[in-house]
Amino acid sequence: MRRWKCICAYDGTGHSGWQSQPAGDSIQDAIEARLAEMLGVKTRIHASGRTDAGVHASGQVFHFDADWRHGPDKLAAGLRGGLVRSIQIVSVRAASPGFHARFSAKGKTYEYRIHLGDADPFTRPYAWVILKPLDLEAMRAAARVLQGRHDFKAFSAFNGAEPGEAAGTVRDLRSLEVRKRGKTLRITAEADGFLYKMVRSLVGALVAAGEGKLTPAEIAAYLQTKVRTEKIQTAPPQGLFLRQVRYR
Amino acid sequence: MRRWKCICAYDGTGHSGWQSQPAGDSIQDAIEARLAEMLGVKTRIHASGRTDAGVHASGQVFHFDADWRHGPDKLAAGLRGGLVRSIQIVSVRAASPGFHARFSAKGKTYEYRIHLGDADPFTRPYAWVILKPLDLEAMRAAARVLQGRHDFKAFSAFNGAEPGEAAGTVRDLRSLEVRKRGKTLRITAEADGFLYKMVRSLVGALVAAGEGKLTPAEIAAYLQTKVRTEKIQTAPPQGLFLRQVRYR
Repeated sequence: MRRWKCICAYDGTGHSGWQSQPAGDSIQDAIEARLAEMLGVKTRIHASGRTDAGVHASGQVFHFDADWRHGPDKLAAGLRGGLVRSIQIVSVRAASPGFHARFSAKGKTYEYRIHLGDADPFTRPYAWVILKPLDLEAMRAAARVLQGRHDFKAFSAFNGAEPGEAAGTVRDLRSLEVRKRGKTLRITAEADGFLYKMVRSLVGALVAAGEGKLTPAEIAAYLQTKVRTEKIQTAPPQGLFLRQVRYR
Repeated sequence: MRRWKCICAYDGTGHSGWQSQPAGDSIQDAIEARLAEMLGVKTRIHASGRTDAGVHASGQVFHFDADWRHGPDKLAAGLRGGLVRSIQIVSVRAASPGFHARFSAKGKTYEYRIHLGDADPFTRPYAWVILKPLDLEAMRAAARVLQGRHDFKAFSAFNGAEPGEAAGTVRDLRSLEVRKRGKTLRITAEADGFLYKMVRSLVGALVAAGEGKLTPAEIAAYLQTKVRTEKIQTAPPQGLFLRQVRYR
């Protein structure tokens, strides 16, 4: 048995999210089904973290153990050959037995895309379409308050730590940046880890700030009180991309 | 009753093509269903031409007759409100009673995208992914032979003219251009009209030329003999975009 580390990309549009589902239409289900075909045994894969239905990834990482003697390139080619078009195997590498896609992760980067104004059908599955104008400078001022090491309970749907996850709700949000190019806003969030629905809540807060509904002082107060308020929406899933998972 | 001209865009990925189907999952079905909801009567729409399953459009044109007294902007807003995310109503205008989306058309522009090398899941539904290298200059030499007024029967799946269509298989291919940017080839085809599967056959011929399997002399011969050969593949549908329909 060897441990294998795999980087994959997926268009989450037609999937029910990462995690295995009874209907079998999750990313995990599709990859595990292909592995079972190749290896002849049911093989469980372990991701750096789940992504919700509709969320995309260009750099999701998972690992699995398999008795495979033909090297990583043939393993990658075999996986690629039998997967739906919405899932891409970017790379497969042999990993040390101690490597764990979730527990070994040291940080993650997400990107969230907002499209300003009416969007064509090719943009809609990959962005939050917002028709009202947003104050970019207000969004950046809000981002500066959120950046850094804070208790992000009010900016998440935290429901108790997952096994092996850092207990508590303090995370180091190393950067939160808003870039504009044409009609697209790209919000990049980098942290040592993220709580459940944290990126989408941060984006919801930035958009509320851009609409003039949330001030930097209020954001600072929510970081202190740790109580979620209805002023912070959860941004819709289809704008979210898991870009990179970092390991030592 | 008034006649209305509408420009629409669609992602063809999840649809069975433009034309109404028993399963009801065509673009035409979706738009007619929304119109029937708004107007209270079954309303037939007429496109500039059908597109096949998986083919996209950013500038498809259709017309319909409706007893609507609230102007084009409210008609557009009403249509937009009830359509699936994969279909966008770009504009609605009042048209003269003699306007016909198909019969009044004077020309069309299509774009075909090829992705060179392994593609991510966000590119795959919108391009033909080709892993082998293509000789760009050979493709351009082939395009120069195809450009102009020719009998394109060998470069189509022509099966007899549609009602009201120009009889015969001579078309004026005003331009056929191949542009490369990064890993994307964009082939733009502009003509007074196109035969069934003509753009995808032209692209198949250009790719065969780029692979060194088809010479400019052979292409010139096929234009003369008008007999389709297996050397000319039909390029897959998902790379094709209807860009623009021109009227006087």
